[in-house]
Amino acid sequence: MIAGHVFIATSLDGFIARSDGDIAWLLERDDPDEDHGYDAFIADIDVILMGRGTFETIRTVRPWPFTLPVVVLSSSMSQADLPDDLVDEIRLVDSAPEEAMRMLEIEGHRKVYVDGGRLIQSFLRAGLISDLVITIVPVLLGEGRRLFGSVAADISLRHEETRSFPSGLVQSRYRVEA
Amino acid sequence: MIAGHVFIATSLDGFIARSDGDIAWLLERDDPDEDHGYDAFIADIDVILMGRGTFETIRTVRPWPFTLPVVVLSSSMSQADLPDDLVDEIRLVDSAPEEAMRMLEIEGHRKVYVDGGRLIQSFLRAGLISDLVITIVPVLLGEGRRLFGSVAADISLRHEETRSFPSGLVQSRYRVEA
Repeated sequence: MIAGHVFIATSLDGFIARSDGDIAWLLERDDPDEDHGYDAFIADIDVILMGRGTFETIRTVRPWPFTLPVVVLSSSMSQADLPDDLVDEIRLVDSAPEEAMRMLEIEGHRKVYVDGGRLIQSFLRAGLISDLVITIVPVLLGEGRRLFGSVAADISLRHEETRSFPSGLVQSRYRVEA
Repeated sequence: MIAGHVFIATSLDGFIARSDGDIAWLLERDDPDEDHGYDAFIADIDVILMGRGTFETIRTVRPWPFTLPVVVLSSSMSQADLPDDLVDEIRLVDSAPEEAMRMLEIEGHRKVYVDGGRLIQSFLRAGLISDLVITIVPVLLGEGRRLFGSVAADISLRHEETRSFPSGLVQSRYRVEA
């Protein structure tokens, strides 16, 4: 069975970026000497799925940070919107979460990294996320792009592990209960 | 110096109650056999400060859960709004956060438990909170009364301690950086 996995950082008040996409507040509180487990997480992933919002915030990052296939789920983007050097790295798919996951499953993928606030929200609503690693950054921003959004009904989680780091980051792993 | 202290539980998506004040989702995930530190916290407090919203959600709780003096900060409540048996337990004060804290300081209070979402938000904005114990409940509610709100500028926190419980609750203590 294919499943979506989340690995994301948020301010204590639930924002993954400022309204304009800025994440300097996160980077300045990150200690590059600390291992927050991203490499181990991504090593176990087949394919990366993100929405347009997340793609736009990283489109200029070079070297391109992913070696895995990246799928951008968007109904508004076309090939012409991709930087020339990323045309072979990124696949644009215009479909709903369930369809996108079915397509990826048919292709043989099993572990999907679902990245970005709006995509995480829609995949949670569709029941397509199996677990979340949430890293809480010790700051209150007051406003910005929210990690979580509305849900049709409560989503119960099973807490699996929490660890904290000298930098002040607190990381918890939750499993979505069926 | 007088200081405000926060001790509160929130869903992973940042809600302290549903929109109608309901906290059954919290109570059903609480394990009364676990010691989450409330008794130790409250033993070190002089006076409890809450807003009308929080008071309304607990006004019918008997036995009355506090032995400490309780001050309800409200511009809309009058003595007539208090249940008869609480008239001697509760003081109504209609003043801004700074004034309320100055009044309590003059009275000799030093450690104030600031309870309730809107009051915590206004006290954070006024720089009157020194530390927060936040207990995260493993559920996504999607909507309700938020713990945090807008801030005039980023509020940096220093992470002091995190512990998790078999029930799945994760409790972190933060100090507000000056």
